[in-house]
Amino acid sequence: MTYDPSNIFAKILKGELPSHKVYEDELALVMMDIFPQSRGHTLIVPKARSRNLLDADPAALSAVMPLVQRVAVAVKAATGADGIRLAQFNEAPAGQTVFHLHFHVIPVYEGVPFGAHAGGRADDDALAALARDIAAKL
Amino acid sequence: MTYDPSNIFAKILKGELPSHKVYEDELALVMMDIFPQSRGHTLIVPKARSRNLLDADPAALSAVMPLVQRVAVAVKAATGADGIRLAQFNEAPAGQTVFHLHFHVIPVYEGVPFGAHAGGRADDDALAALARDIAAKL
Repeated sequence: MTYDPSNIFAKILKGELPSHKVYEDELALVMMDIFPQSRGHTLIVPKARSRNLLDADPAALSAVMPLVQRVAVAVKAATGADGIRLAQFNEAPAGQTVFHLHFHVIPVYEGVPFGAHAGGRADDDALAALARDIAAKL
Repeated sequence: MTYDPSNIFAKILKGELPSHKVYEDELALVMMDIFPQSRGHTLIVPKARSRNLLDADPAALSAVMPLVQRVAVAVKAATGADGIRLAQFNEAPAGQTVFHLHFHVIPVYEGVPFGAHAGGRADDDALAALARDIAAKL
């Protein structure tokens, strides 16, 4: 399996498509998932090109992990979540839908069944507000 | 939330409890999950002490990620899985049950509903064979 540069995250990284951006540096773009599994579902997209974890440059993985951690802490602080799931999917049978490496930071709220709020595209104003709140905690 | 050194993974790291070990180096222990969500479910347990991702040393996270990647590739090769899920849970509401940082590498098989094989303790002989097969691919 090879990297296809026409994937949607590559287009977002190039500025050809919009996103609800939380943060960006030379290593990665952080943005809201527009089909969130819960309120505050955030993605970390490394700029280094790889299809997923399996073909990534190990040095790029090492470089991005401190940011993944910072995002997890910031999402928890901004949302008041009771827990955080970190997830990363490799190949379609595992749930990967965009074939550019990305990490999911998914807040979990006590008493809210996991995935209960999944299924639809989130409201843009709500996503923009969440992006601002999370950025403020980074 | 602070680190409790009496957790079960700390005891495994100290050799006080057994495990189906796949690999060990100065950074981490790799072992089979004895309550697998699918055949070949493997855990990477960094030796650096932290409760989870939220309180981990960023340098320790960077150091362990290339091994997490190697394990994902080896598990896929050893099991013939069609995909791999990487997961890491923070705090009980998110599904964390052992409060020492660990990463789950969970094989996904086409046509097998995810989590369908979950729920019980796996057979020790089967786990030992899987640990050998995965180690051979590392």
